[in-house]
Amino acid sequence: MSKKRALKLGAIIHGVGGSSSGWRHPDIPADASVNIGFYKQQALKAEEGKFDFLFIADGLYITEKSIPHFLNRFEPITILSALGAVTSNIGLVGTLSTSYSEPFTVARQFSSIDHISGGRAGWNVVTSPLEGSALNFGGKPHPEHSERYRIAEEYLEVAKGLWDSWEDDAFVRDKESGVFFDPEKLHRLNHQGEFFSVQGPLNIARSKQGQPVVFQAGSSESGRNLAAKTADAVFTGPESIEDAKEFYRDVKRRIADNGRNPEHTLIFPGIGPIIGRTQEEAEEKYRQIADLVTIEKALDHLGRFFEHHDFSQYELDAPFPDLGDFGSNSFRSTTDRIKRRAKEQGLTLREVALQAATPRNAFIGTPEFVADKVQEWFEEEAADGFIIASATPRGLDDFVELVVPILQERGLYRTEYEADTLRGNLGIPVPENRYTAARKQAGVTVN
Amino acid sequence: MSKKRALKLGAIIHGVGGSSSGWRHPDIPADASVNIGFYKQQALKAEEGKFDFLFIADGLYITEKSIPHFLNRFEPITILSALGAVTSNIGLVGTLSTSYSEPFTVARQFSSIDHISGGRAGWNVVTSPLEGSALNFGGKPHPEHSERYRIAEEYLEVAKGLWDSWEDDAFVRDKESGVFFDPEKLHRLNHQGEFFSVQGPLNIARSKQGQPVVFQAGSSESGRNLAAKTADAVFTGPESIEDAKEFYRDVKRRIADNGRNPEHTLIFPGIGPIIGRTQEEAEEKYRQIADLVTIEKALDHLGRFFEHHDFSQYELDAPFPDLGDFGSNSFRSTTDRIKRRAKEQGLTLREVALQAATPRNAFIGTPEFVADKVQEWFEEEAADGFIIASATPRGLDDFVELVVPILQERGLYRTEYEADTLRGNLGIPVPENRYTAARKQAGVTVN
Repeated sequence: MSKKRALKLGAIIHGVGGSSSGWRHPDIPADASVNIGFYKQQALKAEEGKFDFLFIADGLYITEKSIPHFLNRFEPITILSALGAVTSNIGLVGTLSTSYSEPFTVARQFSSIDHISGGRAGWNVVTSPLEGSALNFGGKPHPEHSERYRIAEEYLEVAKGLWDSWEDDAFVRDKESGVFFDPEKLHRLNHQGEFFSVQGPLNIARSKQGQPVVFQAGSSESGRNLAAKTADAVFTGPESIEDAKEFYRDVKRRIADNGRNPEHTLIFPGIGPIIGRTQEEAEEKYRQIADLVTIEKALDHLGRFFEHHDFSQYELDAPFPDLGDFGSNSFRSTTDRIKRRAKEQGLTLREVALQAATPRNAFIGTPEFVADKVQEWFEEEAADGFIIASATPRGLDDFVELVVPILQERGLYRTEYEADTLRGNLGIPVPENRYTAARKQAGVTVN
Repeated sequence: MSKKRALKLGAIIHGVGGSSSGWRHPDIPADASVNIGFYKQQALKAEEGKFDFLFIADGLYITEKSIPHFLNRFEPITILSALGAVTSNIGLVGTLSTSYSEPFTVARQFSSIDHISGGRAGWNVVTSPLEGSALNFGGKPHPEHSERYRIAEEYLEVAKGLWDSWEDDAFVRDKESGVFFDPEKLHRLNHQGEFFSVQGPLNIARSKQGQPVVFQAGSSESGRNLAAKTADAVFTGPESIEDAKEFYRDVKRRIADNGRNPEHTLIFPGIGPIIGRTQEEAEEKYRQIADLVTIEKALDHLGRFFEHHDFSQYELDAPFPDLGDFGSNSFRSTTDRIKRRAKEQGLTLREVALQAATPRNAFIGTPEFVADKVQEWFEEEAADGFIIASATPRGLDDFVELVVPILQERGLYRTEYEADTLRGNLGIPVPENRYTAARKQAGVTVN
């Protein structure tokens, strides 16, 4: 690679936790998922750790069996905007589905966050894995998996086009002459596609970082291809370093195959480090979390990945049931992996459910141990960086206070922000405005 | 009325101004409409003045002829969320159209702002007057005026239903027993209507003020009826105290006719006070603003109300042209008024355009004069309060620093916030959750 790779870090803030029973831990505020004080504290802690970005996940459909954090939580556009107003350097990345929204509105909202924060917005593009989402948005059938990705691809084309509506120097703002903008630098997209018809222009300028950073989080075949074509960053959930390296190699190859620079799309495994003064203390913390989970909650949690399937109908200690293709229109890469691993390792339903509810990862141990693992994954090209998803109440705080200093000491991680935009810190380029580029290419003098 | 009426105040923050040329004033930052520092300063100034709320206007379609502030501005959901994070008592009201959005998303976003701000959110429901908006949202024809209001009415029904998804005491959060919520207090809306099909439940709880405050801003027949059925507050733009009194009486009567309490829906004329140490200084400030407007910009501005009609084709000093019904599917109440007044007063196109570009209002003068006018309008029931739309760069600052103290001295206006929610300060009740109410009515013991 042409320049030294630099480790990047993000932090998911997810209130009472991405697990079904984390909220029961004595040290977590039980209302954390709608507690603005908690979100602010976590955001400022991540910024203290010089993290590149915060990450807000999302979903559009709940049932009585959804995990507590999903039942009652902030909506991403709003909480990112709020956190943008109280932070100064950290990126603000949030999930928004292309299956149940309007590209004009979403392009505009992320651009507006970009302006509010001075160039720190990022959009994690998802296609809504849950079929039930359709019931909250008009009731037409949930689009099939590969169609969702075709919609997403066109949607991103529209959004990126709208983000270029105004060239960077379009706003002249000459009070004397009364010229507010240069009409030659205002462009209508006039998009007419298979799924969308959007004229434009967008009613907001490009920001300091040109366009919001695009994240992509699907790991299926369609998800990888979408990432390879359009993403600046990829969020993934590998189970081992081997998994992660395979994914990294595969996605970077697809990016190159699309004629894009693989160095400009960063790959971020999500990890849930659990840190103790000793290995035993860390293991004890893990057990404390795992012990909060009842088998009933674990079955509900597992069921959500399979379109809210009712797993309580099966024998708990029999082999994991054969579900055929079931689940493949939902969280496809996750359900494929669960089924494959259950078969390979001969797991029972109980084992699968408990593992899914409190996944073990490779990052459980002392600060030095966790720093070693981070370094290993980074240097062996299993990751360009990590998204820290706290598995314990103080997971992020421990990582910032105990692991980051070690990474800094080893010269692996920044001690100061390099920039005040998300692209600047991630080290990925500001995309040139398409119309400016076209004019240059046509040989017309600019300025 | 059963209790003493209390004057309420809101402030529109609209960057470089709602006029076509205000941005040229030497004292305004020319990029104010996307300047977060400017928005924060104005928000904090309004909060210093103990204002009830900030108000963010919006639009979904621009052309080269749109006024500068519309071309490049923050999106309401994002800027309200950001301002919510840096203020503590002031309400956060923003415009969002029911013609080009999804009720599940919009109900959720306003509810999330309500949680972020501790119960200070308000939604100004509009139906999108500009036909061109359709071109940015799929290109189907813009719904006709009265259909837009039927859509809006059903949309609000859905939003209010979703806001009641969780009863106030639904979240038990008992760490010991592992009970996070009471499933009997979670409700699916199961709405199937003419325009919308939305199952629910919403994935966020009710807030401290129960539901966001609903504003309505249409003054046409359909707009008044929608306000009468559903609004907590009405934003209007009368040209005189007589106009305002007629509107006030009419809307309050319609509210009563709908079986609602007229004291619980407040009427807010928007005014643009211009304050000077002397009457002459105030007039001079008005002239300074009016002089910035060229006739070309004034024609563009006028054209926008009439579906971006090109008025440059007419003779400037001839009588205002006869446009027939044209403009009635757009800003109907505004275009009706312009046409009526031009006819009654025999105005030329030039006169109509310049008046529309820099409207004079009754609130130009010394602080005492403006305070007198405010008092007169309030006491004569032309208004329950006002929305201050700065017509000069320091319009809001002057009002807060010079007029508010006079109103406070006269006992007309609060010196401290009564509450930390918008409903609390406006003095309008928290709506009881519909399911809780139904259970009480059915005689089932609650708690």
